[in-house]
Amino acid sequence: MAVTPRDNAAFEAGIKMGALYHQFVGSPVSPGTVESLENAIARSISVQPFVKHITVSIDRKMVEESLNAFGYTELKGTMLRVDAVIKYENYEAEVGIALKDGYPLMYIKNVKLLEA
Amino acid sequence: MAVTPRDNAAFEAGIKMGALYHQFVGSPVSPGTVESLENAIARSISVQPFVKHITVSIDRKMVEESLNAFGYTELKGTMLRVDAVIKYENYEAEVGIALKDGYPLMYIKNVKLLEA
Amino acid sequence: MAVTPRDNAAFEAGIKMGALYHQFVGSPVSPGTVESLENAIARSISVQPFVKHITVSIDRKMVEESLNAFGYTELKGTMLRVDAVIKYENYEAEVGIALKDGYPLMYIKNVKLLEA
Amino acid sequence: MAVTPRDNAAFEAGIKMGALYHQFVGSPVSPGTVESLENAIARSISVQPFVKHITVSIDRKMVEESLNAFGYTELKGTMLRVDAVIKYENYEAEVGIALKDGYPLMYIKNVKLLEA
Repeated sequence: MAVTPRDNAAFEAGIKMGALYHQFVGSPVSPGTVESLENAIARSISVQPFVKHITVSIDRKMVEESLNAFGYTELKGTMLRVDAVIKYENYEAEVGIALKDGYPLMYIKNVKLLEA
Repeated sequence: MAVTPRDNAAFEAGIKMGALYHQFVGSPVSPGTVESLENAIARSISVQPFVKHITVSIDRKMVEESLNAFGYTELKGTMLRVDAVIKYENYEAEVGIALKDGYPLMYIKNVKLLEA
Repeated sequence: MAVTPRDNAAFEAGIKMGALYHQFVGSPVSPGTVESLENAIARSISVQPFVKHITVSIDRKMVEESLNAFGYTELKGTMLRVDAVIKYENYEAEVGIALKDGYPLMYIKNVKLLEA
Repeated sequence: MAVTPRDNAAFEAGIKMGALYHQFVGSPVSPGTVESLENAIARSISVQPFVKHITVSIDRKMVEESLNAFGYTELKGTMLRVDAVIKYENYEAEVGIALKDGYPLMYIKNVKLLEA
């Protein structure tokens, strides 16, 4: 079957989720730097092709509960809540990362055909 | 529009390409360790869900030409040649990473519906 | 020989330079997001133990010159200029990352014994 | 105070520990691929300057206990046991990463002056 714009919307959306996760998970973070890291991650991924919108939030309660004796922790996949819209030609894939049964699940919420 | 298995095949394929790239690009590598790194990358990504097949090759000529004064370099995206098949329900997405006009392009080659 | 506080100051300083480099090199970046990334890197590393001071700057000219057809690039080690002071007990190691002969060199500039 | 070869031995040793950790933590891993990942990490870091010796082991019991519903996990800092010898001029720093009180501690075990 020929590859369609819809396939590419979903594929590009997956790329961004995998990139975000494996680039930034492991970053040192503390309650005082959570917001700066959220913003930088969202802005960094937003420069990639086809990203129409992205929000990144890091669970502050989990950060607090994970602090080590030195007062910081590392960004874990389970702390991430991501919502993004990836637009490829006339298709938009709404995707995200969220905690599901203890696992940081990457998922497609919706695929939309934009009106001409 | 409802999210289809075909959408998920493409999405999952994208995740793997983005993860591979952003996890391993930057790894120190030399001509003597290229093969070990290729194998470890392929095996690492192969444990993720829905990966039916993956091969990773690193361009040895580019490694040689990038060596610094200490005799090593870092894995760059442009050195990667990846071919993978991601299977989600009855769909297979054949995807890869290859150098295109100097840019490490991630692409879908084909999406297949498997016969029941 | 017994391990000294001075050894630990130098060791801890090295850890921060290696961590910074391998955590963040590869991050997507564009002229519009350079500053956000610089800040987030500096703040992220600053939460690690023994970091007294850190500044991170990314070479804007190199970012501009590296832009791909999609208008962004990835953070490369050669774009980084880092200055940091790591304090371990009564020793301070002043260290950094700077471009030297085309190679992103990590170096110790000075080790200081603080007066009691 | 002038920077000494001993300072540089400790600094270079720190760089390698920080690099190893932040490059490879997050890599997907399963019981069947642990050994391949250990070898690739050790070989990758061994090409960096001044690395005389390095061994990397990943705690198999922790991998087993961390497996998610898909049968894999991600390399965590707490799973790492590293021993390395970094040689700078006539100094050798023996360093490592080990679990201490639930925290993946990077430490210097010894600094040795080699006989001329």
